[in-house]
Amino acid sequence: MSKRPFGLAVAQMGPVQPDETRRQAVARLLAMMREAHARGAKLVVFPELALTTFFPRYWMTEEEAVARYFEKEMPGPDTRILFDTARELGIGFYLGYAEVASDGRRFNTSILVDTNARIVGRYRKIHLPGHSDHKPQAPFQHLEKKFFEVGNEGFNVWETLGTRIGMCLCNDRRWTEAWRVLALQGAEVVALGYNTPSLNIHWNEPVHLRMFHHLLSLQAAAYQNAVWVAAAGKAGVEDGSHLIAGSAIVAPTGEIVAQAQGEEDEVIFCQADLALGDTFKQHIFNFAAHRRPEHYGLILERVGAGPALGKTPLP
Amino acid sequence: MSKRPFGLAVAQMGPVQPDETRRQAVARLLAMMREAHARGAKLVVFPELALTTFFPRYWMTEEEAVARYFEKEMPGPDTRILFDTARELGIGFYLGYAEVASDGRRFNTSILVDTNARIVGRYRKIHLPGHSDHKPQAPFQHLEKKFFEVGNEGFNVWETLGTRIGMCLCNDRRWTEAWRVLALQGAEVVALGYNTPSLNIHWNEPVHLRMFHHLLSLQAAAYQNAVWVAAAGKAGVEDGSHLIAGSAIVAPTGEIVAQAQGEEDEVIFCQADLALGDTFKQHIFNFAAHRRPEHYGLILERVGAGPALGKTPLP
Repeated sequence: MSKRPFGLAVAQMGPVQPDETRRQAVARLLAMMREAHARGAKLVVFPELALTTFFPRYWMTEEEAVARYFEKEMPGPDTRILFDTARELGIGFYLGYAEVASDGRRFNTSILVDTNARIVGRYRKIHLPGHSDHKPQAPFQHLEKKFFEVGNEGFNVWETLGTRIGMCLCNDRRWTEAWRVLALQGAEVVALGYNTPSLNIHWNEPVHLRMFHHLLSLQAAAYQNAVWVAAAGKAGVEDGSHLIAGSAIVAPTGEIVAQAQGEEDEVIFCQADLALGDTFKQHIFNFAAHRRPEHYGLILERVGAGPALGKTPLP
Repeated sequence: MSKRPFGLAVAQMGPVQPDETRRQAVARLLAMMREAHARGAKLVVFPELALTTFFPRYWMTEEEAVARYFEKEMPGPDTRILFDTARELGIGFYLGYAEVASDGRRFNTSILVDTNARIVGRYRKIHLPGHSDHKPQAPFQHLEKKFFEVGNEGFNVWETLGTRIGMCLCNDRRWTEAWRVLALQGAEVVALGYNTPSLNIHWNEPVHLRMFHHLLSLQAAAYQNAVWVAAAGKAGVEDGSHLIAGSAIVAPTGEIVAQAQGEEDEVIFCQADLALGDTFKQHIFNFAAHRRPEHYGLILERVGAGPALGKTPLP
């Protein structure tokens, strides 16, 4: 099978402190966009909530959060230069940010922008982690369920940049349904941004597991769905709270082919061979040949776990 | 949370050659059952098609296969001693074998047997790999789609041995839907047997990937479904064809807590703390709090991949 090379870059960000302006954050993204382009990237993936600090750690009113951390328009005055530069360079990008829609609804959102600086796709995060109540005993909050609604547009794939690109965000990477819905639309590349605190405030989870679960989820998803995965994190200590790094590009073999080395701004790049995904799609993960949806009913019928179906055959 | 220890053993088998009798294979299983019991096991998991060589590698008629390799009754004359010994020791077991039903239908089957030697559960393999046609150019065949029907009883979980146990077989471990349907029935332990050739006859897959994909699939499934996984392989060179080893017990953290060291008969054991699964079920994989089936529709609507849903929002 002949190769189908696709220049794929991930731009990890070091911490964004609360007093950093949008303009400062965008300047960092721009520098990495230029580096990604210079290395041959057709697409550069930026983190979730890339324009601000990871504000769900703060207890505050929704109004206060919107005023400080949400984007009312995209592009806006501070972000337009990202679009202009992408058009000038001829590079596409994925960007995560907090979106307040014209009707006031709030989402944790990513967009996919093509080489003409057109927003071709939007994803509003579906698997929101954390809580909505105040936990004053916790060292910090994880208020995604307070500040964001569950995404209302599903998991989608877009034909652009010469391939088919799906999007998801952060916690989605742990949920196999998200990946499968993208793969069932023929995704070849899945982009995702994340912000993952190394401390789990809900129970005394060993810290090393956070990085392990992050990479395990990416690798299994890439393999079991025959897609390239490009995952961009915001990393390091933000206002006293540590976020894991580990930004990575994973091949459809499940192998990590590029990984960030530190917890600072860093571009990683890979000349991804899209044909490698075709091989897996034609053999072991030939969905049409092997999937058996008649036995998957509970995935839609139930939300939470319930009793066993209780089939006890006679011997 | 107080611990809920459960003695869990996996009995890997070295190769079973074509001329080995059922009685010889069962003697090997018995020895490992006794060792598992001596180490404190409440359940011992044996491989897929544990009573014979991995016969789907041979081109032959269905009648020939049934005559040589299928069980017409369970227990039968050669396997009854497994049940008698289990009752005597007070240990449960999982056993994979080729089943021909009374109506002549053929399945790749596993059973779950309790400490009273009662068959409490049966699973007929759903994700059959391989092909049904003769591939004379290949070094060996992989004829599961010829010799077996797709399982007709779904993915099930049984309350037994003081826990909830789900079953699947071999290639099922690569399919996230199988695990999720088990987890949605509250599985705490999932047992599976496998026979995995190290050579992929369908394309020139690097051999090291077979072991990597095996472990990756087990680890991701254990973590993302908050279950203990007990996976027993048949390993080594059977009649010139090499099967991977790597029998393993994986915790709900996704970590391998026991793994076979070689390619021979070998018992691995772990005092599994079932409460560890509860922790994950109550937090990050609290399905009731986090799953969003309204966005999973394609998983049932489509078998194979189709076009993108094509949602392109206006910016």
